[in-house]
Amino acid sequence: MNNVCAYSKADLLALKSKLELEYAAYQARNLKLDMSRGKPASTQLDLSNDILTSTLTTYTTDDKTDTRNYGGLVGITEARKLFSDLLDIPVEKIIVGGNSSLNMMYDNMIRHMLFGTHGCTPWSKLDKVRFLCPAPGYDRHFAICEELGIEMINVPMTSNGPDMDFVEQACAADDSIKGIWCVPLYSNPQGICYSDETVDRLAKMKAAPDFRIFWDNAYGVHHIFAERKLKDIFKACEEAGNPNRPYYFFSTSKITFPGAGIALLATSTDNLEEVKKHMGIQTIGYDKINQLRTVNFLKNAENVRAHMRKQAKELKPKFNVVLETLDRELTGSGLAEWEKPDGGYFVAVDTLDGCAKATVKLAKEAGVTMTGAGATFPYKKDPRDRNIRIAPTYPTYEELKVAIELFCLCVKLAGVNKLLETAE
Amino acid sequence: MNNVCAYSKADLLALKSKLELEYAAYQARNLKLDMSRGKPASTQLDLSNDILTSTLTTYTTDDKTDTRNYGGLVGITEARKLFSDLLDIPVEKIIVGGNSSLNMMYDNMIRHMLFGTHGCTPWSKLDKVRFLCPAPGYDRHFAICEELGIEMINVPMTSNGPDMDFVEQACAADDSIKGIWCVPLYSNPQGICYSDETVDRLAKMKAAPDFRIFWDNAYGVHHIFAERKLKDIFKACEEAGNPNRPYYFFSTSKITFPGAGIALLATSTDNLEEVKKHMGIQTIGYDKINQLRTVNFLKNAENVRAHMRKQAKELKPKFNVVLETLDRELTGSGLAEWEKPDGGYFVAVDTLDGCAKATVKLAKEAGVTMTGAGATFPYKKDPRDRNIRIAPTYPTYEELKVAIELFCLCVKLAGVNKLLETAE
Repeated sequence: MNNVCAYSKADLLALKSKLELEYAAYQARNLKLDMSRGKPASTQLDLSNDILTSTLTTYTTDDKTDTRNYGGLVGITEARKLFSDLLDIPVEKIIVGGNSSLNMMYDNMIRHMLFGTHGCTPWSKLDKVRFLCPAPGYDRHFAICEELGIEMINVPMTSNGPDMDFVEQACAADDSIKGIWCVPLYSNPQGICYSDETVDRLAKMKAAPDFRIFWDNAYGVHHIFAERKLKDIFKACEEAGNPNRPYYFFSTSKITFPGAGIALLATSTDNLEEVKKHMGIQTIGYDKINQLRTVNFLKNAENVRAHMRKQAKELKPKFNVVLETLDRELTGSGLAEWEKPDGGYFVAVDTLDGCAKATVKLAKEAGVTMTGAGATFPYKKDPRDRNIRIAPTYPTYEELKVAIELFCLCVKLAGVNKLLETAE
Repeated sequence: MNNVCAYSKADLLALKSKLELEYAAYQARNLKLDMSRGKPASTQLDLSNDILTSTLTTYTTDDKTDTRNYGGLVGITEARKLFSDLLDIPVEKIIVGGNSSLNMMYDNMIRHMLFGTHGCTPWSKLDKVRFLCPAPGYDRHFAICEELGIEMINVPMTSNGPDMDFVEQACAADDSIKGIWCVPLYSNPQGICYSDETVDRLAKMKAAPDFRIFWDNAYGVHHIFAERKLKDIFKACEEAGNPNRPYYFFSTSKITFPGAGIALLATSTDNLEEVKKHMGIQTIGYDKINQLRTVNFLKNAENVRAHMRKQAKELKPKFNVVLETLDRELTGSGLAEWEKPDGGYFVAVDTLDGCAKATVKLAKEAGVTMTGAGATFPYKKDPRDRNIRIAPTYPTYEELKVAIELFCLCVKLAGVNKLLETAE
């Protein structure tokens, strides 16, 4: 954002008039569009409709488990193997669970709160528990911490992941920091991929013995423009002598059907024994028939990748129209900046400081719903009031095209208004 | 057990010799039978195989929800209505969740532990939390309390449910008693049905403001010999001015497929708002497609009842052979007593005091696995060492016939050995 200073007051006033005219024209169109929802479009879901119509010709797994009956806490072998191949995680580290990885994260937090891990004090018995929250980030991670009374510390994001100088210093100095939320590939909302160095530093850094990385690889195979790779967090942590540090989460929610897929929790075998001990009190087992259905549809890792290329084909035009419009309307304006994601579900735009709420409000008043400003930060408080999450997947291409154009206009109008406050 | 005293020492020794001969004959057969597992037999599961082969012709609910996508925390309307009709619970009290009612119970306990209810202190912040445990009861209920450090108080069972004099006195005297586990219809393991008076007294009695009834109606439609009715716990509690007291749980696990069905939590709308607030942090929603599949198969309340009559037809011969053999071998022996259940999944036998472990051990050593003695009590401690749970559903009729005959022999042998300890 270099050339903000280039505007004179007269320039700004002229620009404001022009933008307001354009804005009024949008308002007259009575739009009703939504770029807030991080969920797949119907066309993406259609790619998995075979799940609905395929019949199960057997209910028995390769190891002779009757999936119709009780048992099988860690999930059916076929599902564990599929995830193992797809994500390059040893089978013995994997539990395949129910329909929601968020639920597995929440339950994992609860276990640390109530029972602690490997003899450490349960977090609920400590005076203070703090979590590192790379921000902007995923609102539902932050909501878990807020609900549990865990104090959240904003960690600045860089284009290589969380600011590791900040993270290392914080953890070295403060034993009450018990974890970090990470979406390491195509982060929500910026689409940032963690560099190898970031992974290594997370694995190696000094931290409390029960410091845990919640590695939510939600978009692990959700490539769009390029297939970015992620360094193996398990190997890195094992090599660093911290094998119990990471909990890895994944699901098929944005591969097949959100909420009707299967989720994964993977961790060291020591941690897994502990998880199983508590999970075995919570449930007799997850839905093995849905696991079988999902595996029958997805078949194998290569087929999942092929399926995700179909998803990418659906998403490319939508991400392109967002990115091209941002580029055309805002590059060089000095009023916004953003990362170009190679995959995932979002584009995040930083407006001028203090302009996010105003931008979202302007968009709303012209009929376009954005994710609430601040939603991507702990406690819903964006300290610079500048980050806005764009979710291009759910609207149609035509809706999105209009919505993103209006959005850019709102960014400019809010920016110009802000600049006018101090212009001389 | 009236005529134990009728045996002389000589009688007992003669009987012991005869029984030991019979026992040796069983041992020579190298049996490998199992009466420990409370899970349905394959033939019962086959009744629901249409779920595996039916295709979903629509993924949209009556209220236009796309079940493939995110959302719908309380479950699809069709599923809530089906349960509402089947169990006579108002729709607005119902959440339809995932595949496990046990999981819903556990999560509900966790919420009370960490957050409390309606402004009451979270249970985890109290010096002591105690739960009433009608016993013998369901081991997994007790395991939840044990895991959470909740002290369990054994409540004697009568043929009308828990001993309500005991329950009322305990709750009136002790505010640290925060709940009671109930399996009110065809209780696990005795098959006891709570009388109307029991329900009313549970609803009316004085107790801590956050005292809660965990009403696990697991066998609510699982009639075998007669269709016993259960008084409406919600109405009773509302009339008594304690509308927030009960949480009702149910699932289709033993209607369709264990672990691949759908579960219900029902409670007052005030409680439900609280549940939803926390559950909405834990998950975006449960598997709506499985809810839709389940409703498509079960269709309506009347069809569920028809389906359960088919289940009963499968179970009747098994329960009959157990009950007839018990009657033939043990009635009048003074060595055992039991309730004859009209439904559910179990028969519970009380041996002479101090004989349950010995009986289970004898059975084991002749190749028949029973549920561990003590398993039906809090902390796995049967204070009188007499209760043994028989699970007739899973073995075949032929297996069961042999197993129950051997079991009766073991009851007698253990009983005679016990009597000989004190015979003069």
